[in-house]
Parts: sequence; C-alpha cells; structure tokens
Amino acid sequence: MIKIGIIGGAGYTAGELLRLLLWHPEAEIVFVQSSSHKGQAITKVHKDLLGECSLNFSEADFAAVDVVFLCSGHGQSKSFFEQNNLPENLKVIDLSMDFRLESDHHDFVYGLPEMNKAAISGAKYIANPGCFATAIELALLPLAKEQALKGEVHVTAITGSTGAGQAATDTSHFSWKNNNVSLYKAFDHQHLAEIKESLCNLQNSFNKAVNFIPVRGNFSRGILASVYTTCEWSLIEAMVHYQNYYLEHPFVVISDENTDVKQAVNTNKCILHLEKHGDKLLIVSIIDNLLKGASGQAVQNMNIMFGLAEDAGLRLKPVAF
Amino acid sequence: MIKIGIIGGAGYTAGELLRLLLWHPEAEIVFVQSSSHKGQAITKVHKDLLGECSLNFSEADFAAVDVVFLCSGHGQSKSFFEQNNLPENLKVIDLSMDFRLESDHHDFVYGLPEMNKAAISGAKYIANPGCFATAIELALLPLAKEQALKGEVHVTAITGSTGAGQAATDTSHFSWKNNNVSLYKAFDHQHLAEIKESLCNLQNSFNKAVNFIPVRGNFSRGILASVYTTCEWSLIEAMVHYQNYYLEHPFVVISDENTDVKQAVNTNKCILHLEKHGDKLLIVSIIDNLLKGASGQAVQNMNIMFGLAEDAGLRLKPVAF
Amino acid sequence: MIKIGIIGGAGYTAGELLRLLLWHPEAEIVFVQSSSHKGQAITKVHKDLLGECSLNFSEADFAAVDVVFLCSGHGQSKSFFEQNNLPENLKVIDLSMDFRLESDHHDFVYGLPEMNKAAISGAKYIANPGCFATAIELALLPLAKEQALKGEVHVTAITGSTGAGQAATDTSHFSWKNNNVSLYKAFDHQHLAEIKESLCNLQNSFNKAVNFIPVRGNFSRGILASVYTTCEWSLIEAMVHYQNYYLEHPFVVISDENTDVKQAVNTNKCILHLEKHGDKLLIVSIIDNLLKGASGQAVQNMNIMFGLAEDAGLRLKPVAF
Amino acid sequence: MIKIGIIGGAGYTAGELLRLLLWHPEAEIVFVQSSSHKGQAITKVHKDLLGECSLNFSEADFAAVDVVFLCSGHGQSKSFFEQNNLPENLKVIDLSMDFRLESDHHDFVYGLPEMNKAAISGAKYIANPGCFATAIELALLPLAKEQALKGEVHVTAITGSTGAGQAATDTSHFSWKNNNVSLYKAFDHQHLAEIKESLCNLQNSFNKAVNFIPVRGNFSRGILASVYTTCEWSLIEAMVHYQNYYLEHPFVVISDENTDVKQAVNTNKCILHLEKHGDKLLIVSIIDNLLKGASGQAVQNMNIMFGLAEDAGLRLKPVAF
Repeated sequence: MIKIGIIGGAGYTAGELLRLLLWHPEAEIVFVQSSSHKGQAITKVHKDLLGECSLNFSEADFAAVDVVFLCSGHGQSKSFFEQNNLPENLKVIDLSMDFRLESDHHDFVYGLPEMNKAAISGAKYIANPGCFATAIELALLPLAKEQALKGEVHVTAITGSTGAGQAATDTSHFSWKNNNVSLYKAFDHQHLAEIKESLCNLQNSFNKAVNFIPVRGNFSRGILASVYTTCEWSLIEAMVHYQNYYLEHPFVVISDENTDVKQAVNTNKCILHLEKHGDKLLIVSIIDNLLKGASGQAVQNMNIMFGLAEDAGLRLKPVAF
Repeated sequence: MIKIGIIGGAGYTAGELLRLLLWHPEAEIVFVQSSSHKGQAITKVHKDLLGECSLNFSEADFAAVDVVFLCSGHGQSKSFFEQNNLPENLKVIDLSMDFRLESDHHDFVYGLPEMNKAAISGAKYIANPGCFATAIELALLPLAKEQALKGEVHVTAITGSTGAGQAATDTSHFSWKNNNVSLYKAFDHQHLAEIKESLCNLQNSFNKAVNFIPVRGNFSRGILASVYTTCEWSLIEAMVHYQNYYLEHPFVVISDENTDVKQAVNTNKCILHLEKHGDKLLIVSIIDNLLKGASGQAVQNMNIMFGLAEDAGLRLKPVAF
Repeated sequence: MIKIGIIGGAGYTAGELLRLLLWHPEAEIVFVQSSSHKGQAITKVHKDLLGECSLNFSEADFAAVDVVFLCSGHGQSKSFFEQNNLPENLKVIDLSMDFRLESDHHDFVYGLPEMNKAAISGAKYIANPGCFATAIELALLPLAKEQALKGEVHVTAITGSTGAGQAATDTSHFSWKNNNVSLYKAFDHQHLAEIKESLCNLQNSFNKAVNFIPVRGNFSRGILASVYTTCEWSLIEAMVHYQNYYLEHPFVVISDENTDVKQAVNTNKCILHLEKHGDKLLIVSIIDNLLKGASGQAVQNMNIMFGLAEDAGLRLKPVAF
Repeated sequence: MIKIGIIGGAGYTAGELLRLLLWHPEAEIVFVQSSSHKGQAITKVHKDLLGECSLNFSEADFAAVDVVFLCSGHGQSKSFFEQNNLPENLKVIDLSMDFRLESDHHDFVYGLPEMNKAAISGAKYIANPGCFATAIELALLPLAKEQALKGEVHVTAITGSTGAGQAATDTSHFSWKNNNVSLYKAFDHQHLAEIKESLCNLQNSFNKAVNFIPVRGNFSRGILASVYTTCEWSLIEAMVHYQNYYLEHPFVVISDENTDVKQAVNTNKCILHLEKHGDKLLIVSIIDNLLKGASGQAVQNMNIMFGLAEDAGLRLKPVAF
C-alpha cells in the first residue's frame, strides 16, 4: 500500500482526493493536514464522507508517507518547500500552479500523462496541470505533435463553480450566480503560460496567439472548452491523428457525436469531439474540473509514479444527471 | 408625488424597492442612504439598474421626504429610532421584524393589507410582515376569520435564496447550494410569533401548534408553502370562504389548478390553491419573497397609506421562466 | 389605443407579448389566436397571468385591429400571408425568420431600431430580428458604421433555454439540461445570414468570416455574447464610437464594468462592455432573449411605427436574481 | 462472476444499473435488452459510458444469466412474467411497483435490506422498493420496531427530476422546471401503500394516517424527506434506538448535524438526522433516488442474494457538489 499524506486538507481539491483515495485499492491515507481545522473530524468539512471516513485532520508526518499531495493553493507550495525539510525519498504531487512552468530553479515534471508519461513515471516531484489547461491542451496536443498548428487558436471555455474554490466571493454567492453566466480574465488567464509551453514543447515553431475567453458557468462541476483554429487536415485525417495520439491513453475518448459537459462529470475522462467547418477545425473538449482537471489527474500521476495501473481507483461511477 | 427616502439602501430589499419606485407613477426617490456605500453610484451595487438610475447613495434627509423605508435588517430599526429625531409627520415603513409584534411600547401597525387595510390607511408607522409569514398567513386567514381552525396546523415552506439576504455564509455558497435542498430552524422559525398573533387576532380561541418546517430551495426567488389542517368544510365551502375573503384584495388569487412557485415570481401576487383530502384541507400558497414577501408589500402599504390605488406601480411583468 | 391581434398565441414569444401588452398604456389586446388552444382561457397556457387576464384564445379578426403580431414560428409566416387576405392598412410585426433577409419578393423592414429606426417608423411590415442576431449586431454595428471591421469576427454566445421554444426535445429535458452546457450548430447557425446582411448594409466592404459558436446554457432567459475582432482603435476611441452610436437609443447601455447575463434579464435593455487586449477589441453583449431578443423588440417596433414613446410599456422591473 | 441480464435497458434505472455493474467486482453483464433501441450501442443512450462500455442493446437470453433486473416500468413487470417462460433457477429483481405489496398471487420479497435482509438472502424474486418509500421507511422503521408510533405521521419529501423518469412531460421541460418547485399527488402518492405495509409489519397496531406531501425539486438527483410524529422518547433515547436498529446496516448513517440532499448524491447511503421539538420527533432522511432509491438498492439486494459483501460495487465516489 502506498502511504499518503495530504497538505491543505480542507479545500475542494483535497476533499476530492479523499473521495478517490479512501477506496483506492493501493492507497492508505496516513495524514490529512489542515491548519484551519486541526483536530476536527474530516467529515465536519467533507460531509459527504460521513460513515466512510473516521480520520481527523492532524499534523503532517513526512517520515511516515511515500507521497505528499499539496492542496494549499497557489503560492503556498513554494512556501511549503521553504518551511519543511522533506525526506530524500518522499515524492510530491503539487496541485498548485507554483512549479508548472519549466525553470532552472526546480525539477518538477509537468504532470500531464498524455504528454509526459515517461517522465512522470520516473519523477520525484510533479506539478499537476491546471483545469482549463488540461481541457485545452488535450484538445490541441495532436495538432502540435504533427506540427499542424498554423494560425491563431480561439478558445472559449466554461467552467463550473468549484473551479473557483470555496472562498466566499461576490461571484460565489448563489443569489448572484444562479441562472447567470459571465466572462472574466479574457485573453489574460493565468493558465495561458502552461498551455503555450506545452504546445511549444511539441511544436517548437508555434508562435501564434491563443485567444482564451474563460466563462463562469452556473453549474458546479465540469469544463466545456470549444477550441478552433485553421487546419489543413480533412475531418477524417484529423480523427485519425487524434485517435492515434490517444491510443494508449485510457482517459481520453474521441466521440463521433457532439458532447455536453455532464458526459464527463464525476469521471476522470476527457471527451473530445471534432468538426471541420471550412478551413477551421473545431475541437470540443470536456472534463470534470475537480477530477481530470485536478485531483483525478493527481491520482493518475501517482499511479504512474508508483508503477500501478494508470486507472487504479479511477474507474468511477459517472453522475450522469 | 410622494417623496421617498430609503435607509439601508445596499441590501436586497432596498434594491427591490428601487426597482419598484423608479417607475412608480406617484413616487420620487429623494435619498438612498447606505453606510457601507456612501457616495457611490447606486448602479455599482444594484447593477440591473444601469441606464435607469443615476442616483448616488447619500446621507438621509428626513425633512425632505414624506415616507422612509427602513431596510437595514433586524435589530437595526430599533437603533434607528433611538438615534434619529424624526419629523412629526414623517411616515415609516419598516421591513425588519423589530416592531411586528403588538406591544405597549410602540404603535406600529402590522402591514398585511389583506388583514389590516383600514388600520394601514390611517397609520403613521408600518411593520412590514415577514416573507414566510405573509405566505402562511394568507393561506390561513379565511379559516381564522370563520373560527374554523380546529387542530394543529402543518406547514412546510420552501424559500428562494434571496430570503437569506446577501451576506456570504456557508449556505449561500453556490457550490454548496446548487442542486441542493436542506431544512433549517424546524418548529422554531422566528416568523411563528407573528403568524400566531395574526391568527389569534381573527380567531381568539386558536391555541393549537403551528408546526413549521422551513426549507432552503435551490432557486433565487419565491416561496411555496404547503399548509394543511383538519377542517370540517367541503372543498366547495372552502373555496367560497376563500373567494369571499379575498374579493376586495387585488393581489390574492385563488387558482382552481395546482400551482408552482414561478407562477408568482416577479409579481406582487399571492396565489392560493385548495384541495380537500379526507378531513384535511390543504392550502398551497405561493409568493415572490422579495415582492409580496417584502418590498412589493411595502409599496402596497405605501399606496394605501397615501390614498393611491392599491396596485399603483405594482402591475409588474412576470418573469414566467 | 392601438388595437392588437396575436397569431400563434400559445408559444413563448406570444406569452411574453401578452405580459408586455396587458399593461402597455396605449395597447388593447383584441384577439389572441391559437389553433391548438382555441376557446381555452389564456391563463391555462400562460399561467403567470392568472388574475390579470380574462381573455380566451379565439379566432383572428383582422378588421378589428391595427396591428398583428405573428408568433407561429419559422415557416408559418409565409403560409399566413398565402392563406389570409389582410386589410390594406393592417400593420404586421413578424417574429419569425421568414422575411428577415432583403428580397425583391417582399417589402418587410428589418426591425432593429438601433439600425433602422427611420424605416421602421414608416413601415407597414416588420421582420423582427433573431435573438442571437440582436445581441451580436448590437455588439458590431458601431464598428461597421465606421468601416472599422477588418478581420474575422469571433463570437461565442450562450443562450437560455427559452430560446429553443416550448417543444419537448432531447435537449429540453430538465434531467439532461440541468447543470449542463453544450454547443450546437457551430459556424452554421441560421442567424448568420441576417448578421452579415446588417453588417454589410453599414460597411459594404466587409467580407470576412463571422465565426459563431452558439452554446446552450442551463438557465432560462438571456443571451451573453462575447465578440472579438482585430481593431485599430484604442479602448477610449472605441468607447467614444459606441457611446455616440447609441446616444439616441434608450435601450442600449455601455457599461464600464464587466457584465453578466442577469443584469439584463426581464428588461428590454442590451448592455455592452468593451475591452481591448493587444490588437483585439472584445465586446460583451447581453440581452434578454425573449424581450430585446424577441417580444420586447417587437413592442419597441410597434411603438416606433405608431409614433409612441419608444419605451412605452417597456420600462420593466428587472428580475435581478 | 454473476451473470446478469437487464430488461428495459434504455431508461434511467437501467442506465444507473449499468454504471454500477460495469465495475462491480463480481458481476458480468451478459445482455441489456431494449425494445426501443435494439441493436444500438448502449453508449448512444447512456452517453456517460462512452469509452467504458462496448455492448449493444440486444435480445434477452435468460438461459445465459443468473439474475435479471426488470427496469421497464410500472405495469410492465406483470406483463413480462406472462410473456416469458423463465428458467427455474433464474433470480429476478424487479424495480417496478408491480409486486411490492404482499399478496397470495406472488412470492416476491420486499427488497428493503434494512428490514428484510434474511428473507432477501434466500429469495428468488425481489420487489425493489420505491424511492420515496425507501427514504420514508428508513426514517420510521426504528419507531415501528419499538411499537412507538402513536399519532399521525407528517411527511414532506422533495425529489429530484430523475425520479420522474425520462419521458418528456409538461413538468419535465427545463424552461418550466428550472428555478421552480411544486407539489403533486398530495396525500395520495402510490408509495403510501408499501410504506404502511412495512410499518404495520413491524408495528401491527399502527393505524394512523401517514400524511405525505411529495414535492418536485429543481435538481436532478436525491430525495430529502422531513418526517415528524409525536414521540415519547427523549432525543437521546431516539438516537440510541436508531443507532441500534442500523448497527449492522452499512448504508444507513445517523448524523448528529443537520443534513442536505447533496450529502448522499451519487452514493448508496441513507443519512438520517434526528431532532426533538416539544412532543414531536423530527427525522430528516436523505438518499440518492437512483441509487439507494432504485438501482443501488437493487445491487445491494443482488449482493445479499448471492452471498457477496453487502457493499460490493457500491462504495462510490460521492459527487459532493
């Protein structure tokens, strides 16, 4: 059994990790640290686990675990490394954005298994991708691999409310958000940097804009990204390239019908649908933002790092409705 | 034109008052006071009024108005009277619960026009009823008037999120509330006192329990109350009593079909539907909690106090969907 | 009083017309025709009108009215003219798409007041614009007027469910649509033709693609369109052009803050927000699809045709929540 | 491996069974019959299973399976037995209401494991309980077992839309149901018969009314039932009786905090919360209507019938949001 510690255990991504790891066949949760809820029962925060989890939030004990998941939020992971002296063999999977971009100052591997599986399998430290970044990169990687990105890329992606975390803000209030949609950070979302870095890793020549409009949807879970760009391939050629690219990747599915965001909710899948309109290739990409977009992908990375089946503990009952 | 001041102008009930009074044919808004937003444009808070309202939040000027609406919340209205020296002729309509119960210490009239229209027309100070109280009292008044309440009354009422105001709380967060329902304050809601007082005003002998389960619904506006009690009337007799009771009251409508909460949303109406099952009379009562349950009723009271048509400014386009 | 007939009275746009015209100060509803509900009370279909409307669905009587609204749906309006012999002076406002495109075979005026007010004021027959078309054209008209459209236009627009009408379909089922989003008719929506025609009317040289991704939102009312294109103007210049263009148009408001779809729901307003990012001008445009996108605009056209105030009967209480 | 057939495979409960059985460690799906979709891929109907299920809808082959689940809907199960000659050893789990009430004409066991586990373990035919019935009976069984039901029982239960199945009806349309609640079949719901039979099985003397108001909620999954009745126990006594009753039942959890319907969504759990108010005991009971209220309970029954762990294949990741 892989022994597991979680840092920042009271937030959404930590809760989702717990939901996955409690019934994971090869995982044992050793500690769940939370500075805000220390000593409390985990089920006081993650109430859906009532009757399934009898742990309390506690202090971290790094010597007792094989891997630590960092769920404290952006900026906190850097501080974590400054404040803690970790055992040499301890693996770390960081769900924040602190180490996603390549740098001489760290040796994190970008944890997108559909791009980096070999590197992940030998990695000690993993930077888990952003939720929007995951949906958008999976829509574009086969194009980049074939050096087929030629023009600007146009992306609109609608996210569920859990993507914004559990902090109470003006835009998290039910009375405002219910029956409402709005866009934010147009052309300027923080995930653009990791998206561009991933595309350039596969297609060094790509230097066009990725125009990204993020939209706040009035639902809880899921991301639907529509992505289009000029492309010389026919629809058949595109389907073949996408099928080939994802042949060995169990969580990416190509759908010959149009899709909707609930098709992936409560699963670790990414469903892609392709259409060709004139010279434009349209890719619709859907994921569950808390699973393939965060904690599910983190467990997928853990599985790869520890030599388990890539889908261990990740064959989940979809919610469907 | 009736000159109007609003105290506590940044909250939900004040916003709804503004939506009504801006186009009211006999009203002129003179000031909208807010301690938290003084000097700001009203449309920075009530954004739906963009293009229709150019006022700023300001200080109160009691000498310049005929009537003041108090929208600051429970407990604040008592403080308001302690801290302000009001002109002799100034009328006050208080939307808080501070003065709803009869007392030797104040001379507020309980502002439910379907029970107290004559008193309201001569009143100086009005205590505007609670939202749940309005829906439940309108369901029961004809029974009380006929001394026909015999047994315990059983009420479950589901409210939209705006009933809880705009403060950010655990239960106002979209990610929690979306697709969710829960009950709270069972048998113990603060509106029970005014409900019982109103019933006993009409039927002095009534001394049975009103068992009230409030439910938080996952919608924004509206209350649906189901109310039942033993009753000796046939359905026809009940319909006749209810029709007669509400004959002169323009906002209460008896429906011979079952109803749903959206039938009343964005209107000042209360729709009642009656069914008889065995010895039980069931009354379904729906209102918009911010209109007939708060600001719409406040304007209805103002209309009555100033001798206007009871429905002036209150014939509203329903939202319907 | 303008005497009014409605054809196809049981659908969503007819219901919305009734909600507007019942309290319109200059309108009198003479007949509401419906082939599916003939003889029934209107409130059996449009239940929110209970207590406010005592009319029944009836036969049409064209001699008794000044204007007829056609609400029967696409394709039905052509049949209507073939099957009926209309009085010479009868005005017609058609809410279908049958006559929106200019043609030698008809003399309908395209009823977008912000582009065609003079022509509308003298028109006999009006083709009321599509809902998406309204939101998108209002976002682009000032650019076209200044001959400033240079590159492709990129549009994603999310619509509420009422845009799809009341027919029961796979995508209208609550269990499917709740908490869900999906896109449809990408690059191929039927409103593209009227959008391009309007843009070319103002900027004859415009010959680039309008790439339009329609999205089904999980809310009832409203459209939020994000529209961007390359533009040489600074943000300030753009704001000035937009302010000038809409100076005389009471229902289009420029917001200096970002917007959300509920800001316009249950009003006849279109709210525009501008941002400049690099060489791209982004315009966010919101409307209520049943009001400015359909029946509200139809009444606005009627007001102009009959010389009334453009906003008569259209100063509506927003639903806000 | 238990070999499984499903009749009526295109509906909601069949889809939910497939979601459970595909990853059940001891189950093998042999056929999924559907008269409306014969020959089609299952993923054309249950689209969330894309990438996880390659079966097609097919004919039934009763000789090839150990157990058949009947998912065709009420009335269809009786016809099924008339039209088919089943192998002697074939077990049947019927999700319809056709055989829930005891009768001399059949030998179905009522499949509520928390009341009938021993009988279920030896049964050949199981009548799976109704969704409302499950939530309400689990709230009341400990009282009945202790002969502690004394007065009328008052129940209001709010259900998600999937409880009404996938047929398109007036009340399944998103534009109507979104943001809406309504009640139906007050005092007259078809589940009352099985509820009363279960209560009388444990407390033969119980002869008071169960007053049941069903409410249509605007969410997809889940039931929240509030149940109250007069009770002589203190809260502590009640908690002890409930804890004892459910000690051996893995899916019923007593919560010392109030609950909300999402706490159980996408799990097979029933969460009960108790409060005492005056002489009334209030029990709040929540389940997922498609799991503990239908297909999850059916699998639980299968597990018991075949001697598996009661929770095999039923430890599910909650959706939580």
